This record gives sequence, structure tokens and C-alpha cells, in this order.
Amino acid sequence: MTKREVRMVALCMLAPERGQVAYDIGAGTGSVSVELALLGARVYAVDKRREALELVRRNLQRFGAEAELVHGEAPEALLNLPPPERVFIGGSGGRLEEIVEHLSDAMEEGRVVTTAVTLDTVERARGAFEECGFSTEVVLASFARVVQGRMKALNPVFLISASR
Amino acid sequence: MTKREVRMVALCMLAPERGQVAYDIGAGTGSVSVELALLGARVYAVDKRREALELVRRNLQRFGAEAELVHGEAPEALLNLPPPERVFIGGSGGRLEEIVEHLSDAMEEGRVVTTAVTLDTVERARGAFEECGFSTEVVLASFARVVQGRMKALNPVFLISASR
Amino acid sequence: MTKREVRMVALCMLAPERGQVAYDIGAGTGSVSVELALLGARVYAVDKRREALELVRRNLQRFGAEAELVHGEAPEALLNLPPPERVFIGGSGGRLEEIVEHLSDAMEEGRVVTTAVTLDTVERARGAFEECGFSTEVVLASFARVVQGRMKALNPVFLISASR
Amino acid sequence: MTKREVRMVALCMLAPERGQVAYDIGAGTGSVSVELALLGARVYAVDKRREALELVRRNLQRFGAEAELVHGEAPEALLNLPPPERVFIGGSGGRLEEIVEHLSDAMEEGRVVTTAVTLDTVERARGAFEECGFSTEVVLASFARVVQGRMKALNPVFLISASR
Repeated sequence: MTKREVRMVALCMLAPERGQVAYDIGAGTGSVSVELALLGARVYAVDKRREALELVRRNLQRFGAEAELVHGEAPEALLNLPPPERVFIGGSGGRLEEIVEHLSDAMEEGRVVTTAVTLDTVERARGAFEECGFSTEVVLASFARVVQGRMKALNPVFLISASR
Repeated sequence: MTKREVRMVALCMLAPERGQVAYDIGAGTGSVSVELALLGARVYAVDKRREALELVRRNLQRFGAEAELVHGEAPEALLNLPPPERVFIGGSGGRLEEIVEHLSDAMEEGRVVTTAVTLDTVERARGAFEECGFSTEVVLASFARVVQGRMKALNPVFLISASR
Repeated sequence: MTKREVRMVALCMLAPERGQVAYDIGAGTGSVSVELALLGARVYAVDKRREALELVRRNLQRFGAEAELVHGEAPEALLNLPPPERVFIGGSGGRLEEIVEHLSDAMEEGRVVTTAVTLDTVERARGAFEECGFSTEVVLASFARVVQGRMKALNPVFLISASR
Repeated sequence: MTKREVRMVALCMLAPERGQVAYDIGAGTGSVSVELALLGARVYAVDKRREALELVRRNLQRFGAEAELVHGEAPEALLNLPPPERVFIGGSGGRLEEIVEHLSDAMEEGRVVTTAVTLDTVERARGAFEECGFSTEVVLASFARVVQGRMKALNPVFLISASR
């Protein structure tokens, strides 16, 4: 699961507006779907694992949030969805380039945010977005939680935000 | 002005819900007020400097956001406002303890977020909140913007989130 | 044990010269003692735990380094040692102020380095040194090891260097 | 010039022993050469800019340190030097791969440390070393100087240490 602090930055980079169509690709536990939904977006939570979607469903329920559950692998699973304005890619199953190309075709205007924990994925992601004409912004976020005065580091994460 | 990445984390720690009363104390340029308003909060932007409020007004207008402008110094300036559910303290004019005490009296339930750039303010802020019965969470956030592959660090910032 | 990267910065802040008298207070495993000795310092490894000193002895042997082992608690254990020019405080047993006062009396010129993992110890350490007329330098060091492209954060550490 | 904190980590990763042959490639101001020399290494400071070497010379003198000044561009400038045991690459003039290949031929056993401030150079450097049979260690170092309680960040730097 994306750590809470990182999810926060990702969400705020996305800055979804009420009523916008948002995809959460590789929804995992649904933590991002829940927050996108609470911010008023029309959320499509996509995951290829049925058990993940079941977890998403429970978490949505728990927080009184709503989202459409989409079972399948991106980009194929995205083909019949309405064009997105906001996209969070939590997991790409190694098919980031194809997903970005699909999004590029499907989106007129909007923003895609993804995270990278390895050095080569950050460059790869940035490259994929720029080849499709997105302009990108990359941030390295390092958080430490301060618990009783002691700092406990979270692993640094790169956040890539692509807009067009 | 609070750096954008930090503001993002602060906002997401606040996680305002639609219709909640939110104070932005020491509103400065109004960047936090604007985002709180866009997220649907009923925002009171408080600043003791008239020129700051003028800037807030212009920035609200620019982003099509609405907020009540409150001229004066906290905590006095807060006395006639409706009880808050979310508070961002961007500047306390050295009167953090008094502000926290006032908030503690005025709030039933809710959350206050502030930032600290010096080591003693973080401890001081945490202490002030805990003495008033808030439970606190402290995060050290270090961001670096990656521009053409080069990392440009922002100064590390402590974020204190107090809830009750 | 002080993490390797942190020890490196600590050692280089100390920058011991050949033949200088160096104390390693709270020697623990002796990792700092070993490196000070390899850099040519005349090292006194001080620890109140016999089993720690035994470990120091074995580590010195393993790396072909030499140091005097001093059993006891600082500052008392320091009373009969030659005046130090370099001091690393790896552990103070809660008696940092007394140790700093003793060092201040014993040292003419030199440098003391210590680490702090909590926010209040960093301020406390800095305060103790400055009250005794040392000038201080504080650095927040955050390391992440990059293993197969993935970043694994070490907890951030403050390093305090005091000189006179 | 390499920032002091970073230089410290680099130097300690190098951990030169007395009498070892050390190269400082792209010596710049000579700050690394000076410290290598003070640690007892037999230092060759290499730079293609005459004015840099002049600065190195003055800095060596100022700190009472000694090093051989080598005018020229690496790897050609390294051809007649004794085989190194420790190498710091402060600047490669875009010819990192060639330099690493030369070092790989010239060194039996030893260590090379370099820094990278961009994401692709870190991967490129690591790749170059590993292709030549070095084992590598990469660290992301983020420092903030704490001045009067305020944290001033230095830009994060990757340090690559290659050993064989």
C-alpha cells in the first residue's frame, strides 16, 4: 500500500475537481480510490486481482465512498471507460508505456500522477510521458515520522506528475 | 509563502470535508485559503496585515474561490467566527500557545495543522497542542524537485497535525 | 550501533590527526574507536558495560587497530585520562551536560562530535556545548541506501560538532 | 566545489590508508586532494584546467599538504601514473566510461568513489563500474545544515562507491 504521506502528495498533485472522471490504476487496497471519491471525483478503481477489488469494495464502504470497480489489466481494462481527467497509476504491471499511450489517446486535458521507488522507473516514466506530449514534474519526497521525538524514515519516493 | 509541496501535505493532513468551517490563520498570500475553498470548505482567511488580505482577495478571485476575509490578529480576530473544524496555522505572530488555547475552547472535534521550520518550534507546537488535550502527529517532510534530472532540495519542514 | 554512513560523517567532522588523543565515549561495539585508531589517533574507548568493552577489544583485534579500553561511566571514568583533542560521544547515559563540562575543563583546543536522534536532544546538546563556550555546527543527515535501484532510508540523524 | 558534508562521506567511503596511491580526478579546488593528503595518501591531483591546478597548489600549501599536480584530461593524463588504490572522480568531463575502463586495467584492488547529482548519471556510473567487474554501493545523501534552529537543505547527492 502506498504510504499515507506519499498518497497525500500524490492526491494533491492530482487535485481532482468535483465530478471529474478519475482512474485509480492498480488500485490495490483502494486507499487512493477512497480519497479521490471523498474529494468528489467519479472514480474507476482498476485492478487485475479480484481479491484486491474486494478489498477496495470494503474500504469504500467503510469510508462511505463510491467508485466503479473494474476488473482487468490496464490498458485493456480501460477501453470502455469514459475519458479520464485525473489518473493515478499505483501499479502498471510492467506496462507503463502502453498505459501512458492509451491515456494519451483517451485524454484531452488532464493530469496523471505516478510514483517510482527505483531510479530507472522514474526516468522511464518521465520518458514515457514526455514522448506522448505530456509535460512532467518530478519530486523526490522523503518523509520521516516523528514519534516521541524520534525520527523514523519512510523510504524516499519519486512522484511524477504529467499534465497536458 | 508555504512551498507548494509542503502546502499539499498540510492540506491533505487537514483533509477538509465539504461544508466544514476552516480557518487559515496567517493567511499570507492565501494559497492555503484558495485550496481549502476549492475543496469545498467554508474558509475564514485571517491576517493582521491589510496588504496580505488584499493579496488573498486577488488570489481567491483568480482561482474562482470564495472565502471570508478577516482582518486582525489571532486569537482575538477569531472571537466572532463560527467554531472551526479545520484550522491551518501558517503564521502565529509568536502567539501559538494562545491560539491553540482559543482553538481548544472553540472546537469540539476537528484538526489543526501547522508547520515548523525550526527545531524548537516543532517541540513547542507539539507541547502546546498536547497540553490542550489534542493528540498530535509530527512528520518531517523533505522534498527535492527534480529538474532535468538534477535534484534541487527544498528546506526540510516539520508538519504538526493535532486532532481531537 | 551507529550506522556506517552516519559514523562516516561523524568521523570526518572529527577529522582526527595522527597522534591526537581521542576519546570514544559510550564506545558500544567499538566501530568508531577502530576507525579513529586506523586514522592514527591515540584512542581511549570508554564504556560502562564490560561486555561492550570485550566487543570493542575483539573488533580492534579484527581490524589490527589499537586503543586503550576504559571501563567506567563518563565523566568519572575520564578523570585520569590525558586531555583529549578529539571526542566522539556515542552514548552519554543521560549525563551529557556533566560530560560536556568535564571536557570543557579538560580540553584546551579540540573538537567533540555527537549524534542525536530526537529533537530535544539536539537542542539540549547544542545548548550544553554553547554554555561551555564551544561553537557548534549542526547537520541533519538523511541517507538512503540504493539497493538494486530501490532506496532504503536510514532514519535521519542530527550530528552536532562542537569546537573551541 | 563538492559541498563539505558530501566530501566527508566520499572521503570516508574511500577510507584511504597511509601510503596508498590516490587519484583525485577533476581535482577542482583541491579540497579532496588536501584531505586525502592529510590522511597520508600519496595523492595525484588531476585537472585539465591550469587555473584549477594553481588553486589546488595554493590550497595544498595553505593546509600544509602535499600532492603531485597532473595537468591533462583523464584517462590520458593517468597513463604514466603509478597504479592507484583509491580514486575520487570529482569530474569526468563526460568520459566516465573510458576513465572507469582505464582504472579497471590499472587497479588490482582498490576503491573508486564518485558522486552524481542527476538520476541518469547515477545509473550510468553504476553500470560503467559493474561492467568492469567492480561491485558497487550507492547511497543517496541528503544534508541540511541547522543554523539557529532553521534547516537549510543541501541538494541531495548520490555517492557511488566501487570496489574490487
